Amino acid sequence: MKSITAEILAIGDELLLGQTLDTNSHWLSAKLTETGIRVIRRTAVGDNEADILQAFAQAEARADVVLITGGLGPTHDDLTKPCLAKYFNCEIKIHPEALAEITAFFQKRGRELTETNRQQAALPVCCEKITNTIGTAPGMWFQRNGKVFVSMPGVPHEMKKMTEEIVLPKLRTIFNPPVIVHRIIRTAGIGESFLADRIAGWEKQLPAHIRLAYLPGIGEVKLRLTATGTDKDTLHLELEKQTGLLLPLIDEFVYATEDEPLEKVIGKMLRDKNLTLAIAESCTGGYISHLITSVPGSSDYFVGAMIPYAYEVKMRQLGVKPETLEKYGAVSEPTITEMASIVRAKFNAHIGVATSGIAGPGGATPEKPVGLIWIAYSDKYKTVTRKLMLTHDRLLNIKLTATAVLNLIRLNLPR
Amino acid sequence: MKSITAEILAIGDELLLGQTLDTNSHWLSAKLTETGIRVIRRTAVGDNEADILQAFAQAEARADVVLITGGLGPTHDDLTKPCLAKYFNCEIKIHPEALAEITAFFQKRGRELTETNRQQAALPVCCEKITNTIGTAPGMWFQRNGKVFVSMPGVPHEMKKMTEEIVLPKLRTIFNPPVIVHRIIRTAGIGESFLADRIAGWEKQLPAHIRLAYLPGIGEVKLRLTATGTDKDTLHLELEKQTGLLLPLIDEFVYATEDEPLEKVIGKMLRDKNLTLAIAESCTGGYISHLITSVPGSSDYFVGAMIPYAYEVKMRQLGVKPETLEKYGAVSEPTITEMASIVRAKFNAHIGVATSGIAGPGGATPEKPVGLIWIAYSDKYKTVTRKLMLTHDRLLNIKLTATAVLNLIRLNLPR
Repeated sequence: MKSITAEILAIGDELLLGQTLDTNSHWLSAKLTETGIRVIRRTAVGDNEADILQAFAQAEARADVVLITGGLGPTHDDLTKPCLAKYFNCEIKIHPEALAEITAFFQKRGRELTETNRQQAALPVCCEKITNTIGTAPGMWFQRNGKVFVSMPGVPHEMKKMTEEIVLPKLRTIFNPPVIVHRIIRTAGIGESFLADRIAGWEKQLPAHIRLAYLPGIGEVKLRLTATGTDKDTLHLELEKQTGLLLPLIDEFVYATEDEPLEKVIGKMLRDKNLTLAIAESCTGGYISHLITSVPGSSDYFVGAMIPYAYEVKMRQLGVKPETLEKYGAVSEPTITEMASIVRAKFNAHIGVATSGIAGPGGATPEKPVGLIWIAYSDKYKTVTRKLMLTHDRLLNIKLTATAVLNLIRLNLPR
Repeated sequence: MKSITAEILAIGDELLLGQTLDTNSHWLSAKLTETGIRVIRRTAVGDNEADILQAFAQAEARADVVLITGGLGPTHDDLTKPCLAKYFNCEIKIHPEALAEITAFFQKRGRELTETNRQQAALPVCCEKITNTIGTAPGMWFQRNGKVFVSMPGVPHEMKKMTEEIVLPKLRTIFNPPVIVHRIIRTAGIGESFLADRIAGWEKQLPAHIRLAYLPGIGEVKLRLTATGTDKDTLHLELEKQTGLLLPLIDEFVYATEDEPLEKVIGKMLRDKNLTLAIAESCTGGYISHLITSVPGSSDYFVGAMIPYAYEVKMRQLGVKPETLEKYGAVSEPTITEMASIVRAKFNAHIGVATSGIAGPGGATPEKPVGLIWIAYSDKYKTVTRKLMLTHDRLLNIKLTATAVLNLIRLNLPR
C-alpha cells in the first residue's frame, strides 16, 4: 500500500526568533501519524514572501498533504493568505459567508467590527473556506493535481479544533490512508525504565505490525501500542489481546486503558461511587483544583477547596491546630494529616486531600529542603500520608505533586 | 550590512511522529537571534538518508550557517554522521583524541567501553571535532566555501553546552554578525486588530531597521520591536525612543515593557505596595491561584484562596448570604460583589477578587448562557465588577477569565 505523506509548515518570525515554541507542528505530527498519514518533513519559515513561496513549492513537490499554520492575523506582517493566493494564482475577495461569521462573532461579544477585522473575511477565490467557530481567521483548503494544501490559524486551540473537526475527517475521506489502530495504556507511579524492565518479555513477543512506544509525562508514563494493517476490527482484537497480556504485569500502576487523564478517571470513579471531594492545597497553590475542574461536570463531585497559603490562613480559616503548626511546622506529617481531615469535615465531603511542601526555590531549611512535600488522603475509614522528595524546579514540583495526589485518590477510594 | 543567515535542521523519526517536542530548534533560534545571526528556516526530517541529504543541500544553498541536531546515537537508525561524510565526500575514521575522551568518559563512570561506544569516536576526516564534555557523541564542524555546518547531539543539555561554549563564540569570530536588539511590550484587554488600528500611525513612521510583530496570546497581545544595526547602545536608545512614542497611544492596555507575564507583574506591584491578595474563585476552579503561585516568592503577597465550587460551600464556608444566592443566583453581580469583599475580610487581605460563571459545556440556563462570567475586585476603597461574555470552550473560558481578573487587579490597585 502506498503511504500517504504530509509536510507541516509553520509560518511566523516569532518561531525563527525563538520567542514562540512551535507546539502546533508537534501536535499535528502526532495527529497525522495517528490518522495513518506519514509526516516526512516539518519546516518553519518567517514572515517573508520569497521564503514562504519556496517552502510551498518544495513541500508540494514532496508530499501529498501540506498543513500550514500561522501568518493569518489581520496585521501587515501576516503573509500566508497573499502568498497562497499568489501560489495558487487567484484573487482575494470578501467571502460573504465568512464575513457573516466574523460579523456574528463580533456582535456576540458586543464589539465593533473594524475594517481590519472585515479583511479577515477576504479569501483567495480558489480555496474552500474552513469555518473558525472559536476565532476570527477562517482556514483555507486548496486542492490541485491530487494534492491538498490546508492553511490554519496559528492560535493553538483554533487550529486544533479545525484539524479534528474538519481537516482530518476530510483527509481520511480523500486519501483513505492505511488502517492504524492505537491503544493507550496510562500508568502513574512508576518510572519509564522500571516499566520497560517489567514488560521486556511481553514487548519481545509483539508481532512486527504492532509497535510499542513509551511516552513519558509528568509523574506518569503512557504506553502506546500502534497496529498497522487493513482491517480495523482485526487490529482492535489484536490490541485487545496484547493489552490483556500486558495488564497483569503492571496492574497496580495502570489507571486507564484509554487516553484519559488521571483527573478524568478520578472524576468518573467519584461519580460512580457517589462520593464528593474537597481539597486543602498549600504548596500546589490551586493546581490540583484546576485539574479537577478542567473536567466538564466536575461540580457533580468536587465541592470545593481551600488554598491556605499563609500560615495565618492555615490556622484561622482552615483550622489546623496552632500547637501542631508550632511543634511540627506546616510541612510535616501531623499538619498534613490534620489538613486532609479538616477540609473533608469543613466542606462536608466524603474525601479530603491535602498538600504542603517546599515547592522552591525559596523557603527551604536544613531539615526541610526544596522538593520536600507531604500529601494526604482522608475518608471516614482511614487517613493515608505520603512524603515526596522531588526536584528543584517549582513548576515541576507542583505538577508532580498533583499527579501523586490524584494517584493517591485513585488507590485509596473506598470500594 | 549583509546579514548572516542560519538554518536549523533537527533529525529524528521521533520528531515527525510527534513523540518528542523539538525544544532544541526553539532554543537554538533564540540563541542565534541574540548573537545577531538571522534564522531563516527550521526543518525537521526523519532518519532517512535521501531526506537528510536533500535537507543539507537545500540549507547550504540558502544559508551561511547550518546547525544540525540529533541522529548521532550509537544505533543503526542514526544516520547523521554517514550522511555528513557522504555529503562532504570524505571517509569516516576513528579520531584518536575523540577515542581517548570517550574512553575516559566511560572509565570515570566505571562502565565498560563497548564496540558500539567505540564507534562514536569515528568521525568524517574532513571535519573538526567538537568535544562533548558531558556525553559520548562528539560534535562535528565542517566548513567549505565560506559556509559552516555544525552537527551536535540531540540530547538537550549536551547540545546547549556545545553551542554556548564552542559554536557561538566561533561563529562570532568568523562572521562578525550585526547587532540585534529586541523590546517586548505586553498588553491585555485589547484585541490584536484594535491594537493595530490604534498604533497604525506610529507603526508607519518606524524606520526600516526596526520591525514590529504582533504576538497574540490568551486575552493578551505581545508587541515585539526588533532593531538591527551595528551599535548595541544606539539600538537600545532607538527602541527606548520608539517605546516612548508608542506607550501614550495604548497606555491603559500595557502591563509590561519587558517580557514578563501578568501574574509576575501583579506580584511585583503587590510586593512594592505591601499589599496582600485573597481569591474566591468559583468558575476558574483554582487556575488564577495557580498562576499567582507559579511565581517564586508569591507567599509574600498571596495569603490564600477559597474555591467554593458547590452552592453549599459558597454559603457555609465562604459566607455569601443565602438570600443573595436565592434571589440573584450564583452567577450574578450581587453574588460576585459579596464574594470579593467576603474573601478579603475572611482572609484578612488588602485585596479580594472573585469569579463566578458558566464555564460550560453544562450548567447554562436561557438567562445565563455558557460563557457568561462575572468577576469582581474589592479593596477598602472600592468594589469593581465586570461581566464577561466569553466562548463555548471550558478551558479557554477559564484562561480568558484569569487574564481578565489579573488585569482587573492591575487596573484597580490603590496608588
